[in-house]
Amino acid sequence: MDQPKESALAGASGHGGRMIEARRLFPGAPEPFIDLSTGINPLPYPVPSIAPSAWTRLPEPEEIAALEDAAAKAYGVAHASMVVSLPGTQLLISLLPRLFPQSPVVILSPTYGEYARSFAAAGSLVVQARTLAGLADAPCAVICNPNNPDGRRFEAAALLEFLRERKTGGLVLIDESFADLEEDGLSLAPYLPQSNLIVLRSLSKTYGLGGLRLGFALANPDLVEAIRAALGPWPISGPAIEIGRKALVDRAWLGVAKRRLHQDVGRLDRMLQRAGFSIIGGTLLFRLAEGAAAPELFRRLGSAGILVRRFDTNPSWLRFGLPGSEAEWRRLTDSLA
Amino acid sequence: MDQPKESALAGASGHGGRMIEARRLFPGAPEPFIDLSTGINPLPYPVPSIAPSAWTRLPEPEEIAALEDAAAKAYGVAHASMVVSLPGTQLLISLLPRLFPQSPVVILSPTYGEYARSFAAAGSLVVQARTLAGLADAPCAVICNPNNPDGRRFEAAALLEFLRERKTGGLVLIDESFADLEEDGLSLAPYLPQSNLIVLRSLSKTYGLGGLRLGFALANPDLVEAIRAALGPWPISGPAIEIGRKALVDRAWLGVAKRRLHQDVGRLDRMLQRAGFSIIGGTLLFRLAEGAAAPELFRRLGSAGILVRRFDTNPSWLRFGLPGSEAEWRRLTDSLA
Repeated sequence: MDQPKESALAGASGHGGRMIEARRLFPGAPEPFIDLSTGINPLPYPVPSIAPSAWTRLPEPEEIAALEDAAAKAYGVAHASMVVSLPGTQLLISLLPRLFPQSPVVILSPTYGEYARSFAAAGSLVVQARTLAGLADAPCAVICNPNNPDGRRFEAAALLEFLRERKTGGLVLIDESFADLEEDGLSLAPYLPQSNLIVLRSLSKTYGLGGLRLGFALANPDLVEAIRAALGPWPISGPAIEIGRKALVDRAWLGVAKRRLHQDVGRLDRMLQRAGFSIIGGTLLFRLAEGAAAPELFRRLGSAGILVRRFDTNPSWLRFGLPGSEAEWRRLTDSLA
Repeated sequence: MDQPKESALAGASGHGGRMIEARRLFPGAPEPFIDLSTGINPLPYPVPSIAPSAWTRLPEPEEIAALEDAAAKAYGVAHASMVVSLPGTQLLISLLPRLFPQSPVVILSPTYGEYARSFAAAGSLVVQARTLAGLADAPCAVICNPNNPDGRRFEAAALLEFLRERKTGGLVLIDESFADLEEDGLSLAPYLPQSNLIVLRSLSKTYGLGGLRLGFALANPDLVEAIRAALGPWPISGPAIEIGRKALVDRAWLGVAKRRLHQDVGRLDRMLQRAGFSIIGGTLLFRLAEGAAAPELFRRLGSAGILVRRFDTNPSWLRFGLPGSEAEWRRLTDSLA
């Protein structure tokens, strides 16, 4: 069993956003610390004012149905019966090995570390593959599309062919957490239902609402009902329903965010290239840079109060999220110079 | 297998708070509808202003640890290693049969219907018992303390003796969702760790924050870690952490709420008695009333825009939550007259 490892910080559990620990490791760093260790949009969807009853009442089934209908339309799913709300996709990633025991699990790697962690913790044999062909015979296959940290992408057509040619009946998980800003033709959501396929979507990345805990599993109605039964009648919060319903129908906001992020990643790429790094890939929310000076740059940035993601298995890699303000851009520019 | 049934409305799924369906069934009723079908405090903990970052950042492990420390202190648990945060206790109730398969499951009844529903859905044999002695040989035992809908209570000493005398090693679930306002000597939280015991606490009832989705499982450190691993690193929202930390240390608010609710249930009891009903029991958040006129009163209240809880298995029972304002009290008074 070969598990991918990644960490923002030596000794950290491998997740971004661990600013408390960053401050402990770089105690002299100027504040406020800038967290570029995540792929979360630094310009989040503006949280509207919340009806007081959203905090107090148990969510009504009809409200959850309306949210899932909005998600179906936003993601291009043919019917809301193929959508189930989650308190963040991570909860389902953690639960999947218990709800649908699978072994071995083949993960297209390197990628988000929680898949390997949660399946291994539940006793599944976890194997890494580097190509889609390497997953063909896998009883359970995990693919992040686009992938984190390198931005590797598959067209829906290629994945549909992959699904058609599979000989085993185990689950295929396609994590589309970073797919909101991709061009048409990447997501499998419009091609549901498919047997044994679960697609994950999230409000945490593009919408920048990681603390809200809202995501969706898209799957055929039988799988959706199995997940819904496991989570019970009130898995998500009233504010998540209210904010999610507004955010998912707000195509204007998404368009503006996309244009802005497009400019920003171009600016980041140029800065990293000037600093001697090459860009391996990424999405509009993060860039993976490679260079021999990566370990030194990680420490230099940390001391300057800027946290980026490094990788134990690839010391020459650093992953950069996007600064959110001109002041943050300036601090990054100064530290890279 | 004998499953308890309860429903606020004919054809409803059995949960309170289903106002959309209530409006459908009583279309001519005056608005706003008053929902007395739940046991949720109508005067909730005042939601403080939320830091914008609580919506956007992934919660830090240290923040979750601080919340669980506050919960340990509030509930009298010796150490926070015996506390795990949940996005509402219902999620764990739904997941328990999958995380810790148990059969048969003996439920002290009548009680909250979701225990029977979720264990039966997962394939467990579900049995009802009417006395604590009836649970002695149960591989898995479920006790709500105080109980919903009748307010039946057990002192901690009696439950500790029950635990000592059990001959089987299956799980014992004690649901203390309604225990916040009880006198000392009822909760098992101060007596943890106990092998195989899980105690549930909630911010939904006394704190009136059902939409927030925040609860806790209290158990020995091994069980806590098993639940934590199943739910993954970010099961609860940033706002839930922030609000929960404030609410759980606010003993002054709890004291004021208790005095107020004490007066209110006295007022409700007198009104129901004047209307010819006897009070079977309850807590400071709901009262169970019995009377031959219950079915007629349910319809009369519904037509007046007041929803209470009725029970398919006991047509002479009605459960009343508390009105939240003087206007609501007046409408209830008028409808009972």
